Amino acid sequence: MRSIRLIWIGKTQFPFVQEGISVYQKKLRHYVKVETEEIHASKYASGTVDQWRRQETEKILKRLDRSELNVFLDENGKRQTSAGLAQWFEKQMTLGWPRVNFIIGGAYGFEKSLLPANFTCLRLSDMTFTHQMVRLILFEQLYRIFTIIRGEPYHHV
Amino acid sequence: MRSIRLIWIGKTQFPFVQEGISVYQKKLRHYVKVETEEIHASKYASGTVDQWRRQETEKILKRLDRSELNVFLDENGKRQTSAGLAQWFEKQMTLGWPRVNFIIGGAYGFEKSLLPANFTCLRLSDMTFTHQMVRLILFEQLYRIFTIIRGEPYHHV
Repeated sequence: MRSIRLIWIGKTQFPFVQEGISVYQKKLRHYVKVETEEIHASKYASGTVDQWRRQETEKILKRLDRSELNVFLDENGKRQTSAGLAQWFEKQMTLGWPRVNFIIGGAYGFEKSLLPANFTCLRLSDMTFTHQMVRLILFEQLYRIFTIIRGEPYHHV
Repeated sequence: MRSIRLIWIGKTQFPFVQEGISVYQKKLRHYVKVETEEIHASKYASGTVDQWRRQETEKILKRLDRSELNVFLDENGKRQTSAGLAQWFEKQMTLGWPRVNFIIGGAYGFEKSLLPANFTCLRLSDMTFTHQMVRLILFEQLYRIFTIIRGEPYHHV
């Protein structure tokens, strides 16, 4: 795997989330090339939630390539421990994917009927976090995964 | 319940975590009185992990009162959805606890043998987060719980 891309919908709004992302993005760069891609959110002024969800999902799919590994973050995804995720990730690294994409849905999630069959789906928690917080939590977790893979002590403190 | 207290070990180190806590603490204050209490971390220069863990757990226990509801955050705790947690919390609110304490262990967690029998234990995720990030995640989740209890729409965006 040459690089990781995080794809999300809409600007990162809270400055603290932006700062946290920068902290972990910088740490993660010691291990792998990391890109982020921000997709415009739908205009939530007119239309319905279903329409916005569908529009945003379509925009995401246009940015994806079937030759890459695409991991959708979703509350119905597979539960993983950090160690389990690291193990899975390490295996993926041997499979020669040119890039791994982690995709965070917008404020209203994905339109699942549009997603490819057997899509890979990951759950960060049984609890629901805002899609903004998920960006930060995912970044911290990716950094943790790489420290586990490299056998380095995670800085507990 | 008159108030919520979050208890944790050691200073909040990353400025972004501190800022995020402030954001949600402010929002949460619309619903309930919120206090935080920081307990000094052990000096990790001398001694062993077991000693530090025991010391810190003892310091936490000194700050707790059996007449209050004490909830320990732990990776072996009960998994909850946000809605499930809100429901549980709402029930606790009717039971007349003077205060609910959420306790986040230090860098090395709790010495479980010291904790009271049948202690209440909550798991935020199957993944492991730093005890610093847990502060922020817990605050966001408490805010979410209160919006659920009050039947208010959580701001998705």
